[in-house]
Amino acid sequence: MKLARLGPGGAERPALLDGSTTYDLSGLTGDIDGGFLAAGGIDAARRALAAGELQELAGADTLRVGAPIARPSAVICVGMNYAAHAAESGSAPPEVPILFLKTPNTVVGPHDAVTIPPGSERTDWEVELGIVIGARTAYLDSAEDSMARVAGFVVGNDVSERQFQLVDSGGQWSKGKCAPGFNPLGPWLVTPDEVNHADLRLRSWVNGEPRQDSTTADLIFGVEHLVWHVSQYLTLEPGDLIMTGTPQGVALSGKFPYLKPGDVVELEIEGLGRQRQEFVAYEKGA
Amino acid sequence: MKLARLGPGGAERPALLDGSTTYDLSGLTGDIDGGFLAAGGIDAARRALAAGELQELAGADTLRVGAPIARPSAVICVGMNYAAHAAESGSAPPEVPILFLKTPNTVVGPHDAVTIPPGSERTDWEVELGIVIGARTAYLDSAEDSMARVAGFVVGNDVSERQFQLVDSGGQWSKGKCAPGFNPLGPWLVTPDEVNHADLRLRSWVNGEPRQDSTTADLIFGVEHLVWHVSQYLTLEPGDLIMTGTPQGVALSGKFPYLKPGDVVELEIEGLGRQRQEFVAYEKGA
Repeated sequence: MKLARLGPGGAERPALLDGSTTYDLSGLTGDIDGGFLAAGGIDAARRALAAGELQELAGADTLRVGAPIARPSAVICVGMNYAAHAAESGSAPPEVPILFLKTPNTVVGPHDAVTIPPGSERTDWEVELGIVIGARTAYLDSAEDSMARVAGFVVGNDVSERQFQLVDSGGQWSKGKCAPGFNPLGPWLVTPDEVNHADLRLRSWVNGEPRQDSTTADLIFGVEHLVWHVSQYLTLEPGDLIMTGTPQGVALSGKFPYLKPGDVVELEIEGLGRQRQEFVAYEKGA
Repeated sequence: MKLARLGPGGAERPALLDGSTTYDLSGLTGDIDGGFLAAGGIDAARRALAAGELQELAGADTLRVGAPIARPSAVICVGMNYAAHAAESGSAPPEVPILFLKTPNTVVGPHDAVTIPPGSERTDWEVELGIVIGARTAYLDSAEDSMARVAGFVVGNDVSERQFQLVDSGGQWSKGKCAPGFNPLGPWLVTPDEVNHADLRLRSWVNGEPRQDSTTADLIFGVEHLVWHVSQYLTLEPGDLIMTGTPQGVALSGKFPYLKPGDVVELEIEGLGRQRQEFVAYEKGA
């Protein structure tokens, strides 16, 4: 099942996609958020669909696509989680997952324009498999308990400003990860039954030219391990997002130029949909 | 003016403290949160008090003290912001503010018991001046614009697990900063007119023995600079919290033992009140 949030920013309407039909979920819930997920909302939506209780959402194709979950309480990111990306970044593969956080207000729709921060010359893309948490989770006994806490998967772009992240930061990466709009998410929240999350092709392009092309089979630490591991250090709330890390092929490698105004970034993960963002110059007061 | 949130966790009632009297603010607002602050709630509370419109909150002394702001959207921390603490941590003073994030669900009441995470042998205290943001803030032109965005100040304990933060982390500190209950906050949100935030004595004790004893006059980067600086890298939301860093006198220095179950930590900042936490052992399922 695929869930989406469609409409203007801050006024998105919850929706369910089934084949080529988009159904309105606003009779079932006000939003797709942690409360909806924790209360068994995905099962309720599935039942309503099967019972023919949902109305088609008229004009769905004309609506802006929002992030498929309302603002999480936390966005937890995993660094250096593909061996080839660690190498292109000048690092050895990590022995344990490296975690850092983005502020939740970075999460925006998958096709929203992204502003290059003022003064930035090193804005970079990162296609990532995102995990959306479905239930409050702390201190899991084992990775076998993880999937019961996963509501679904999303495409995310962990946009990064490398000068802020690596040079102006004193080494703590979040400074380059939290600029406004730096976490395009979606288009869909896809339930785990729809994909084999352990082997999904993920790709990115800049102005139509290929950049990243890998598979989640190459993750050093996979989905189940990550949810278990993160739960040892913090309490995951329903609706929270874990960004699992990015594969090789980013500008930080030195092989490609950083983003400039007018560049278009596209990102796709098999079964999870495709994003397209235009990167734009900062305008004061805009 | 001092604001507080009193009552059971998740059901705190907004209150205003004036001298020895505690007034109920629940006729004015449902909670002390970002929406309240952004809508000019502090001025409205001040007017209601002056007009004699507030009722005394009966039995206020018997109520649990909650964090004085409802869960922020982000908790931004500043590392190594006192020269003597940087030295005791084995680091040179930073040339720019070092930022990292805690998950907002670490924020709890100032006297709530704090659980030492399972397996932890290096749980540490950090008394800090916290800044509560009153309005959405991005890309401030200068530090002179900062105080107009500050709703008030709070005492915070940036509880830290040093093994998680420094060894098991790959160098990204958040892993040791986000365990459940790791950000006791309060007792009060104190408006800027009540204190000279640039010179406040801040102290901590463990089992009654003195640990930290410094002043915010020794901050490397002060309040105005920090709000301006942070706003260059992320958008601050009303109700967000900036923890400004801790002075020397923590266990990481090697001069004091780390916390063990039964230890009592107290923290105080001049004019902002006092916290007291018992540190307790983790119990599965508790």
